[in-house]
Amino acid sequence: MNLMRTVHVSLGSRSYPIFIGGKILSDLGGHCAALQLGRRCAIISDQNVAPLYAAKAAASLRKAGFDPLLATVPAGESSKNLKWFQSCCDLLAGHRLERKSFIVALGGGVVGDLAGFVAAAYLRGIAFVQAPTSLLAQVDSSVGGKVGVNLAAGKNLVGAFHQPRLVLCDLAALRTLQPREFRAGLAEVIKYGIICDQALFARLERDLPLLLRRDGEVLAEVVARCCEIKADIVRQDETETGLRAILNFGHTIGHAIEAMAGYGKYLHGEAIAIGQAAAAKLSVRATGLPAEEAARIEKLLVRAGLPAAIKLSARRQTALIGAMRLDKKVNDGQVRFVLARRIGQVEPGHKIPPAWIRDALAA
Amino acid sequence: MNLMRTVHVSLGSRSYPIFIGGKILSDLGGHCAALQLGRRCAIISDQNVAPLYAAKAAASLRKAGFDPLLATVPAGESSKNLKWFQSCCDLLAGHRLERKSFIVALGGGVVGDLAGFVAAAYLRGIAFVQAPTSLLAQVDSSVGGKVGVNLAAGKNLVGAFHQPRLVLCDLAALRTLQPREFRAGLAEVIKYGIICDQALFARLERDLPLLLRRDGEVLAEVVARCCEIKADIVRQDETETGLRAILNFGHTIGHAIEAMAGYGKYLHGEAIAIGQAAAAKLSVRATGLPAEEAARIEKLLVRAGLPAAIKLSARRQTALIGAMRLDKKVNDGQVRFVLARRIGQVEPGHKIPPAWIRDALAA
Repeated sequence: MNLMRTVHVSLGSRSYPIFIGGKILSDLGGHCAALQLGRRCAIISDQNVAPLYAAKAAASLRKAGFDPLLATVPAGESSKNLKWFQSCCDLLAGHRLERKSFIVALGGGVVGDLAGFVAAAYLRGIAFVQAPTSLLAQVDSSVGGKVGVNLAAGKNLVGAFHQPRLVLCDLAALRTLQPREFRAGLAEVIKYGIICDQALFARLERDLPLLLRRDGEVLAEVVARCCEIKADIVRQDETETGLRAILNFGHTIGHAIEAMAGYGKYLHGEAIAIGQAAAAKLSVRATGLPAEEAARIEKLLVRAGLPAAIKLSARRQTALIGAMRLDKKVNDGQVRFVLARRIGQVEPGHKIPPAWIRDALAA
Repeated sequence: MNLMRTVHVSLGSRSYPIFIGGKILSDLGGHCAALQLGRRCAIISDQNVAPLYAAKAAASLRKAGFDPLLATVPAGESSKNLKWFQSCCDLLAGHRLERKSFIVALGGGVVGDLAGFVAAAYLRGIAFVQAPTSLLAQVDSSVGGKVGVNLAAGKNLVGAFHQPRLVLCDLAALRTLQPREFRAGLAEVIKYGIICDQALFARLERDLPLLLRRDGEVLAEVVARCCEIKADIVRQDETETGLRAILNFGHTIGHAIEAMAGYGKYLHGEAIAIGQAAAAKLSVRATGLPAEEAARIEKLLVRAGLPAAIKLSARRQTALIGAMRLDKKVNDGQVRFVLARRIGQVEPGHKIPPAWIRDALAA
């Protein structure tokens, strides 16, 4: 086995490890063998990732005695819908996957969310393993069991809480990411600094050039730290009845941008970068975030190559605010925002007047 | 409130009551108010049931301060698929149902399973109430939290365990059932006698004429007894890791008949009646069920107006046995049967040679 770091997600009988290391995808079969599942399994991947890594993953599974089927969906957010969900389910049924069978989600956030929901619902739930290949998936979406697909009306509106049995973050996969994909992942990394770790935020300000060069050691440490933060939050609030909502900093506006622009125009990380910059401005006004800290947030996003603003006509702004009302955090028709008091300290549940949202977007 | 019986399903924080009584649908709003959910809700029903009961259900909800939306799907098993699942989800999103909103499943087993899966997955899970209007749904499918839809490859292959917050069995609704629908429900009633209550089985042998006339008192007692049995089994094994499998007596062959014939040709109860008669024959051979008890099972099914046999060519028999291998109880490619030792005592997990299945079907 290759050298690696381990982060543990403690959820009682649903606990699982996150393994982080270089080239550890070749250990996939060995790790899966430890889970004592059935022989049959399916790798769900996309048309970008499968040509790069599916053969390696399948070979590792076969070497460990498994019989993997490969299902490939088109790359991109537009595959994260019920049509592809059904296609995957039909494929699994056609190949006679059973209750003890399992699914390996090999790809970025779209593949992990889609394949995870397939695992949650097929035969009322089978085991699954996350093998995230994008930075965004490694630090965020592969950990914590939120799985699902989009509806035309909004992001992630259909899904489940279904924890993986294992997360395998192969850092070597990050080297093959397109620059735009890599930068989108940095938006979630920066988010962890804002919501609960000012030291991480300061480190990102310092080490951003190394990160952008994908320095192995810095990547390993940053990915592991983000996974630790996420694991700690999920441990305290698995199904988002409270604390977990802080992970949605920047997401209320971000999800609405994705829904309004049509899934696929903005990458998720890009949309939430805009959302985080706007949330920082709202925080200055509503929760006393110092203006210089809001400026540091915006500056770090921009240095990471991310958008921090969106130009919209008044009509499109109104549409955007309408789209926010479909956010899952809405209660009694009221949109709730996660806002910051300081870098490293945020609070969920803030109601914000629509006029303030317009101001934050316009700025 | 109207006079009623109450059965309690004890599942810790997921516990809920089953209310059984005449005309209690008009108390729907009051019962829902006790659950402290949001104002917005949706009634999901079908084109047979909605014209009869949706207005009454909606009026009761409105009187209690709720704002119900009505979604109607075509009647019959062919609506229990991912296409109608998506339509329902889109409708809920379009009407801005939130996390605190809830769904009322008003109809038979198809509506309950479909609406329940919508509730399980929409926004990763919202509350739902079962208001079953068919005998089959009142005694079986509305209790226990198994929800889901069919794939082309087989019954209930996609779904979740999602317990309702309340089940409301209005016995008056049983009077408007088509005779064929009512008889199909009797197949599940008879099943409860076979799997764990010989006194119930003997009562059914005695009181069948009263039941077929839909005598109010007998119906109330029989529905309540079936709900008690189901609640007791679900309490012991919520997610079917063991005991709960006995509820599938007759279902391995029954589900395969439904899948092979095309959903909708046989009603679920009719298919499992055939399945139970065949399982009784297999039980005589494999688990020592006395032949005269197998004969009593077949006779009671036939007296209830249910099919107890199916004529198939050798080729169709082979197809049927192939379809069984997609049953969720399959493990390592081996179909497992629930078989009886005596009326009132069954065991899951029996492997049966295909030749024996052919014999049981041919007899």
